[in-house]
Amino acid sequence: MTQYIKIPVTVLGATGVVGQRFVRRLANHPLFIIQHLAASERSSGKRYREACAWRLDGEPYGGLSEHVLVDGDTDHAMSPIVFSALDTGPASELEPKFAEKGALVFSNASAFRMAKEVPLLVPEVNPDHLRLIEFQHRHHGWKGAILCNPNCTATVLVMALAPLHQAFGVEQVFMTSMQAVSGANYPGVSSLDILGNVVPFIRNEEEKVEEELPKMLGRVTPEGVEMAAITISALCHRVPVLEGHTEAVSVKLHGNPTPKQVREALRAWKPEPQQLGLPSAPPMPIRIHDAEDRPQVRRDVECDGGMSVHVGRIRPCPLLGIKFTLLGHNTERGAAGGSILNAELAHAKGLL
Amino acid sequence: MTQYIKIPVTVLGATGVVGQRFVRRLANHPLFIIQHLAASERSSGKRYREACAWRLDGEPYGGLSEHVLVDGDTDHAMSPIVFSALDTGPASELEPKFAEKGALVFSNASAFRMAKEVPLLVPEVNPDHLRLIEFQHRHHGWKGAILCNPNCTATVLVMALAPLHQAFGVEQVFMTSMQAVSGANYPGVSSLDILGNVVPFIRNEEEKVEEELPKMLGRVTPEGVEMAAITISALCHRVPVLEGHTEAVSVKLHGNPTPKQVREALRAWKPEPQQLGLPSAPPMPIRIHDAEDRPQVRRDVECDGGMSVHVGRIRPCPLLGIKFTLLGHNTERGAAGGSILNAELAHAKGLL
Amino acid sequence: MTQYIKIPVTVLGATGVVGQRFVRRLANHPLFIIQHLAASERSSGKRYREACAWRLDGEPYGGLSEHVLVDGDTDHAMSPIVFSALDTGPASELEPKFAEKGALVFSNASAFRMAKEVPLLVPEVNPDHLRLIEFQHRHHGWKGAILCNPNCTATVLVMALAPLHQAFGVEQVFMTSMQAVSGANYPGVSSLDILGNVVPFIRNEEEKVEEELPKMLGRVTPEGVEMAAITISALCHRVPVLEGHTEAVSVKLHGNPTPKQVREALRAWKPEPQQLGLPSAPPMPIRIHDAEDRPQVRRDVECDGGMSVHVGRIRPCPLLGIKFTLLGHNTERGAAGGSILNAELAHAKGLL
Amino acid sequence: MTQYIKIPVTVLGATGVVGQRFVRRLANHPLFIIQHLAASERSSGKRYREACAWRLDGEPYGGLSEHVLVDGDTDHAMSPIVFSALDTGPASELEPKFAEKGALVFSNASAFRMAKEVPLLVPEVNPDHLRLIEFQHRHHGWKGAILCNPNCTATVLVMALAPLHQAFGVEQVFMTSMQAVSGANYPGVSSLDILGNVVPFIRNEEEKVEEELPKMLGRVTPEGVEMAAITISALCHRVPVLEGHTEAVSVKLHGNPTPKQVREALRAWKPEPQQLGLPSAPPMPIRIHDAEDRPQVRRDVECDGGMSVHVGRIRPCPLLGIKFTLLGHNTERGAAGGSILNAELAHAKGLL
Repeated sequence: MTQYIKIPVTVLGATGVVGQRFVRRLANHPLFIIQHLAASERSSGKRYREACAWRLDGEPYGGLSEHVLVDGDTDHAMSPIVFSALDTGPASELEPKFAEKGALVFSNASAFRMAKEVPLLVPEVNPDHLRLIEFQHRHHGWKGAILCNPNCTATVLVMALAPLHQAFGVEQVFMTSMQAVSGANYPGVSSLDILGNVVPFIRNEEEKVEEELPKMLGRVTPEGVEMAAITISALCHRVPVLEGHTEAVSVKLHGNPTPKQVREALRAWKPEPQQLGLPSAPPMPIRIHDAEDRPQVRRDVECDGGMSVHVGRIRPCPLLGIKFTLLGHNTERGAAGGSILNAELAHAKGLL
Repeated sequence: MTQYIKIPVTVLGATGVVGQRFVRRLANHPLFIIQHLAASERSSGKRYREACAWRLDGEPYGGLSEHVLVDGDTDHAMSPIVFSALDTGPASELEPKFAEKGALVFSNASAFRMAKEVPLLVPEVNPDHLRLIEFQHRHHGWKGAILCNPNCTATVLVMALAPLHQAFGVEQVFMTSMQAVSGANYPGVSSLDILGNVVPFIRNEEEKVEEELPKMLGRVTPEGVEMAAITISALCHRVPVLEGHTEAVSVKLHGNPTPKQVREALRAWKPEPQQLGLPSAPPMPIRIHDAEDRPQVRRDVECDGGMSVHVGRIRPCPLLGIKFTLLGHNTERGAAGGSILNAELAHAKGLL
Repeated sequence: MTQYIKIPVTVLGATGVVGQRFVRRLANHPLFIIQHLAASERSSGKRYREACAWRLDGEPYGGLSEHVLVDGDTDHAMSPIVFSALDTGPASELEPKFAEKGALVFSNASAFRMAKEVPLLVPEVNPDHLRLIEFQHRHHGWKGAILCNPNCTATVLVMALAPLHQAFGVEQVFMTSMQAVSGANYPGVSSLDILGNVVPFIRNEEEKVEEELPKMLGRVTPEGVEMAAITISALCHRVPVLEGHTEAVSVKLHGNPTPKQVREALRAWKPEPQQLGLPSAPPMPIRIHDAEDRPQVRRDVECDGGMSVHVGRIRPCPLLGIKFTLLGHNTERGAAGGSILNAELAHAKGLL
Repeated sequence: MTQYIKIPVTVLGATGVVGQRFVRRLANHPLFIIQHLAASERSSGKRYREACAWRLDGEPYGGLSEHVLVDGDTDHAMSPIVFSALDTGPASELEPKFAEKGALVFSNASAFRMAKEVPLLVPEVNPDHLRLIEFQHRHHGWKGAILCNPNCTATVLVMALAPLHQAFGVEQVFMTSMQAVSGANYPGVSSLDILGNVVPFIRNEEEKVEEELPKMLGRVTPEGVEMAAITISALCHRVPVLEGHTEAVSVKLHGNPTPKQVREALRAWKPEPQQLGLPSAPPMPIRIHDAEDRPQVRRDVECDGGMSVHVGRIRPCPLLGIKFTLLGHNTERGAAGGSILNAELAHAKGLL
């Protein structure tokens, strides 16, 4: 097998849980190789295993237990690709600096998601939004750019809506989520709050879904993204589940297709990452379930390394026309895996 | 304190979990006293403690551990009031016989819920549906009657919709439920199916909610109940919660009231059971929560002995106008407690 | 009913979860009335409802939502009785000051538990250890004293061992615990650590059980407490349970009594709090279960307001002679309720 | 890669959960190939997917969805190797018939476990017990034989005790288990019994552990197995965990070795399946954890396909000398995986 030179990458915020997910997914990645693990000043200079309490399954530290952490600034942590697992505050400050100096910054933070010139990228859904990078070059004079992946709940939702929008046109969406505790990071949700309970509130979550969806399905114009004319109502809940968001979805589609037509549109969808065979792209972006009680989060969410989404129970909705159950992996497809797939798309498009 | 003579009652299906809930709530009831505990042939003649594996908290057997079980037929188990905890099959056969011979049968089964002449009774919501009893007398020549309480999910929902229907008029309803395992009785849901999981399917549950709601909010006419013109879409899920159904609700109300007006309509509601001071009626039928993350099922559902419902997070819905979180006790308000409250209403109205 | 003047008390650390439990149990207490709610400097001057996120069931703030918090020092928070819900650090500093100035300090902290002159008090077990107060008067020149309640796991265990020690003499003890998450306070155990999991480690817990037990069952001598000659091995685990510690216990008793004799010794035990009828004492200190699969924590632990312990499955142990299942409430009997019962004992003994 | 002819095998009780585990593990097995899937009369003649509700993760039906089920008798289901997932009743009747006609029957049932001439086989522990097959030939005149794998809890325990018995000699054992719900099969444990609960009773489980251990560690003599002189006390509990039994173990070892010596004995153990490289043997039979809070069932149990066991927290025990935490997979190592490893051992030893 021919070996190519891999592209060096940085992980900002490498000691947190999202950072760990980046490290785990980047170990043995065919295109990328970790050059810098960056963390806060307090941790820099330490070995990864000393500064980081590893929380994931599988080989601890992704084989980098002896890697020495560096400061998360452009002097110490520059790479052509920067994966950012930073919180909003540090992300606001640091990500633009890396972009200015030429890095493509693939960010999990919400800091710049709604900025007009920043792509809210899901490779299966809106690969053409990559063109917004040029806006950033022009507008800010940056050599690099910031590319965000959306909120995890919105990511899962848009994966099912995109083929329906292409096939029929989505007009209205109801989405009630039952979300895993991992979405709140570690230590995150206290066991006293969630054991045997449902919490009907996740701060800012409903707002994020309602505003990010129209941007993702929007059209790139010379002035930036024009939002799609879709009205969404999101109702978000935390449930005692470890990984994976279940979403109960109803949609009003143009032309009122039947459940069978909807099933076929989802099944037939073969977007660009699957056509290009990107390394992290699942073979089928949507797994359709015909059993009457599937998908089920605990049984289905780890399929395809958490990169596909699951649809089942496609049936008529008395109000909007079609309803179905949707399931996706919040910390893989909805976080680290999503960012890495974004970088793979940028690479395939020759942007590196 | 003056003591009145209590009305003797029968519990059909006394050994099951719903039967046990009847027994627990009827121990020390101010109006009713258990005369007969009826069970299948296999158990009749045995003492209650011998035939029944008690599954509830509190004093086992409601003080009736030595009570001898009888056959569930009209020869052995007749009383003026019969509470039926039977499954659909036996209910279809036995309930009409008791009604024919003069009993008021308060049933938890779904067998006759949608029959035109049978009231689907929630005392706070449609006390006037009691008039349907006369239809049964005329139509079947019965001396008694069958009165059903609705499906547990529908009961909780109608408690919040009734005051809104009275104040504004309900036009459309979205309801996504996250339901407790106790709704499936014992042994019911296998732990292998629900630990750390969400099951997006409960057989017939969505259909029941969608058809029972319009009947409960309908109008009694000389031809029976005229369904209310409300369109409902129900999406039902099982979650790892012991008791209590959480419902994410969106409603389209006539005249588009504000969240504040909706809150006030719910708060001000004082229906007949509260006016009459029925023994099992909670002081306020709806508890309104102003904390941003309440109601929560584990923390709130046992309030008022499970007889009130809880509403919180009343907020604008981009699609239907108003959305809120709703919570109620599926096995108290939604089963045994609801039936007993029905009997109390019938008693207060002089129907006994 | 005659009304007596109640004794004013202080709660130190009133805003934490243990503090809240004190407040909830002291609302409507027949002997004590809350005079001061003390908290850290940051909170003092605020109303209780402003400074405290109430985490418990039942009426929030125990009716004291408008009570103004004071600093936790002897100038602002002095009372004849002080209940301390402080962490070890502040407890080490503040509790002696209150004791010096004359308060009886009933502490939940571990700071002084093993001090020779401090009683590790469980009223049913070692009421005579109250005599250690005089040591404190003499030794430190204090007008008041510090009285500790033991670690929650040790408290539950000693409740079952005390009657066996009195009846037979305890020689060796094996104790494997399965402990509730509430023992780690709020937010305490992350849901990511405990959902569907067993964690075989609770810091210092095994050591505390192994050293506190012999002190509690020890004898007061002129030199302080002489430890009982009992060897204990504790193996502690966290399980996904909300309230209540389950303990699997094996004991070697002098004279090798039969399970029947052990059951009788536990049943017949009627220690001082029950003889005196202390307000928080449960009618029977030990509830014995004869069902083959009880006690069960979720079903039994709230019995008697969590103040009794439960024993079941008393059977022969091939190694030590007797084994049984033990259950008790870690945050009621093992924390706030235990401290208040201690104060009630001190009151009944005329120490106030 | 050279392809060898695979040995045809039968799965008795193929539609149950244990049967499904056999099917899943035997799909793509390098030595064995499924010839017959046998089930009760009611299912025979149906396709596997029609007769069986698949409950496991991964590809449903192990690729055999169209396989036609046969009756579980020797006329229809004979193979050189028979894996039995039958319940005790049918196992008692059918397994001897297959053994008589020449099959090696690898059984999960408890029916013949304690029979003197039947090996209770764990390949790492007592491969020499295979010699008991000759007893069966002589004693019963069978051409084949029955070989049992032990109770799941006992299997996990013996994996840790065997190297200690070899290195030092085991004298006494305390074992408190916290067992997964999957041990009770499907539907098994009701969610109403285990959510947020600990059940301190599993029928016959303690007895099985206490009697099977000495047999497994016993010596084969001309009269059958001579039990090892080890006294065991088992205390068994069900906890809300899906897969994997956690065991808190204390042992008295000959010569009182230190924790370090114990750790080294466990680490150095390289028994026969690892020496032979049997296909289902994990690379290391025991994984030793040095983190203070590991092993944890949810995080560690799926390691090595569930075929290794985990030991951590090796520390001094005040009573018996050494205590540690032990963890193993009850339905892989403790059921289907264990039986298949037994068959691989028999094959390697030339018994087929």
